[in-house]
Amino acid sequence: MRIYHYQLEVRTHGKGLYEITDEVQSKIESSGVQTGTVSVFIQHTSCSVVIMENADPTARRDLEEFFDRLVPEDADYFTHNSEGSDDMPSHIRMVLTRTSETVPIVDGKMQLGTWQGIFLFEHRRAAHRRKVFITMIGE
Amino acid sequence: MRIYHYQLEVRTHGKGLYEITDEVQSKIESSGVQTGTVSVFIQHTSCSVVIMENADPTARRDLEEFFDRLVPEDADYFTHNSEGSDDMPSHIRMVLTRTSETVPIVDGKMQLGTWQGIFLFEHRRAAHRRKVFITMIGE
Amino acid sequence: MRIYHYQLEVRTHGKGLYEITDEVQSKIESSGVQTGTVSVFIQHTSCSVVIMENADPTARRDLEEFFDRLVPEDADYFTHNSEGSDDMPSHIRMVLTRTSETVPIVDGKMQLGTWQGIFLFEHRRAAHRRKVFITMIGE
Repeated sequence: MRIYHYQLEVRTHGKGLYEITDEVQSKIESSGVQTGTVSVFIQHTSCSVVIMENADPTARRDLEEFFDRLVPEDADYFTHNSEGSDDMPSHIRMVLTRTSETVPIVDGKMQLGTWQGIFLFEHRRAAHRRKVFITMIGE
Repeated sequence: MRIYHYQLEVRTHGKGLYEITDEVQSKIESSGVQTGTVSVFIQHTSCSVVIMENADPTARRDLEEFFDRLVPEDADYFTHNSEGSDDMPSHIRMVLTRTSETVPIVDGKMQLGTWQGIFLFEHRRAAHRRKVFITMIGE
Repeated sequence: MRIYHYQLEVRTHGKGLYEITDEVQSKIESSGVQTGTVSVFIQHTSCSVVIMENADPTARRDLEEFFDRLVPEDADYFTHNSEGSDDMPSHIRMVLTRTSETVPIVDGKMQLGTWQGIFLFEHRRAAHRRKVFITMIGE
């Protein structure tokens, strides 16, 4: 049993879902772990990790639209807006989704279901370089 | 320290919460792990895992009603509806809840609080066979 | 590779975010773990763990206000209210946020991003003593 840490950089260019499944799987292969778990940890408070349907892009667009309506940028009671109108909504969307996920590894492969992909969910409009920590525990 | 993987099948018959606490605890006993962690991972994008109050069924009904109102099936902007009007809402409800949870194990028992139970949260109306991955790390 | 379990007690005095980053880091130092992961698990169904912006208190106030509006106490369809009008909303807010988070440890330090803090998110109005389980896996 060993621990392996890696860091990914994900470049985003506006709000939306960016798939990182292949990058995570590639780090598992680098580690050589055959059985264990991988934890994906987002080092930011204005983007999230989510596991989402990865086949049909309309599902991702509808999800983004839902979050735009659930957490509107122009809520008149927001006071934390030093970085613009997408500042506070980005923190709320992060809290409503996830900062970490843990996925099992068997025979060197993540045990995702048929339609599952791992996505970085960017909540800011501007381009960002996002840091994602990948940790494998296993053998 | 070792890794133990198990798979559960949970049969669901419509939207709602299905308790799996006993099934997860039973797999811990099969593994023989006395101290460690158990991760519960849902291999689907239209149901979730949540840890919820397990004593009073009215709490579960109110929770289901809240989600029916927060993510209505008839939102006119949904375009991903190839599997019916509960298709897109099921993905959104999954993203708003969880795909994995990690619970500590001490003396061979999950360290849940007094009122906590582990539930599969089904978001589809039709009957399904759901696959849940259970991974123990410990000794 | 070893497992280390600790329990924190967090005293809360009403709804809101209570930072526990230093308490979690302190348990990592007690364990001596240099590389691994730490899982934070909340043993309750009416409070949550969230990783949130820890610099600007206005961000936390806006987050609390958002949740007060998203899950109002006076929803007329709630039937689970034996402990008062903040009873059912507290369970819903917990389900919309998180019961566990897993954070990587490198060189004995949690790998949180610059602005990330770990918070217990209390959803009840009355004072409570909350139990939080901290589990390190590593070496």
